Amino acid sequence: MIVLGVDPGTIQMGYGVIKSDDQRLSYIDCGVLKAPAKVPMEERLYMMFLKLKDVIEKYHPGEAAIERPFVSKNAQSAIAIGQAQAVAILAAQEKGLTVFQYTPSKVKQSATNYGGSTKDQVQRMVWLQLDATAGTKVGGSAGLGYPFTETFDPTDALAVAICHTYELRLANSLAQLK
Amino acid sequence: MIVLGVDPGTIQMGYGVIKSDDQRLSYIDCGVLKAPAKVPMEERLYMMFLKLKDVIEKYHPGEAAIERPFVSKNAQSAIAIGQAQAVAILAAQEKGLTVFQYTPSKVKQSATNYGGSTKDQVQRMVWLQLDATAGTKVGGSAGLGYPFTETFDPTDALAVAICHTYELRLANSLAQLK
Repeated sequence: MIVLGVDPGTIQMGYGVIKSDDQRLSYIDCGVLKAPAKVPMEERLYMMFLKLKDVIEKYHPGEAAIERPFVSKNAQSAIAIGQAQAVAILAAQEKGLTVFQYTPSKVKQSATNYGGSTKDQVQRMVWLQLDATAGTKVGGSAGLGYPFTETFDPTDALAVAICHTYELRLANSLAQLK
Repeated sequence: MIVLGVDPGTIQMGYGVIKSDDQRLSYIDCGVLKAPAKVPMEERLYMMFLKLKDVIEKYHPGEAAIERPFVSKNAQSAIAIGQAQAVAILAAQEKGLTVFQYTPSKVKQSATNYGGSTKDQVQRMVWLQLDATAGTKVGGSAGLGYPFTETFDPTDALAVAICHTYELRLANSLAQLK
């Protein structure tokens, strides 16, 4: 099954696409959807919505996993978080995907076995688990043999997708025990 | 021109549709879009999105005015506000409407000439300005000769639409002075 992971934001939104076979995860794509900060907020949200739908049309994921923070610095940033989440949710729903949401600490716990991991640790664990050390479309390398991404958003999005596949496996395993 | 006003919410979303001629405002419709609270949030947002698009298809407004609160009790409610706003913004954008946003105090100031008006005052002023004392589709009467609505959401939405038409007139008047 193909899974889309999303790290929602109103200025830039990270996305990651992975494939999950029975025992194996593999990397398909990741990147950042951007909308110019100068553009009015209303248009920016719509640009993100259209761009995310394009990604879904390209890879046909069956499920979407979206990061859902519960806290924020202030009301203004919380409102922006809610807007970005809604953009991702509506784009996924419109394309018929089932939507799942995970808190940042759940994603870190799942992708690195430690809820307090740094973004850098999450990034390294993501690439290790996807075995994406070479030949990916991300281009370049961070000097550690890992694909290079300009920001943490794409790997955060991949981490959400990885988290979701682990949760699904766990649920399936538990179902088989019954 | 026909204007859509929206009072965004994730459980219920108020909408109001008015027509603005040169000197006159007239009432077209108002109501509440609801999504069952039991339904998962992801689906609820999408239901609201589809229902609001239906309203737009029915009345073909040219512009949308959406209420934009800046503060909230806590991060959770701020996130919900942001989600509801994004639903309204995306539905309007997808239907080609130009989107405008107004803070609650601006709406009150504009619709009642006082930023600290109660919801009840706003409601009465809305009906007075729309001259909608009888024959409206809202049905019934609040015993004051005004149309009856179960909650304040529909009249709040009409107030946002009224606020927008006043802002437009002001802008046009200023432009003619130049």
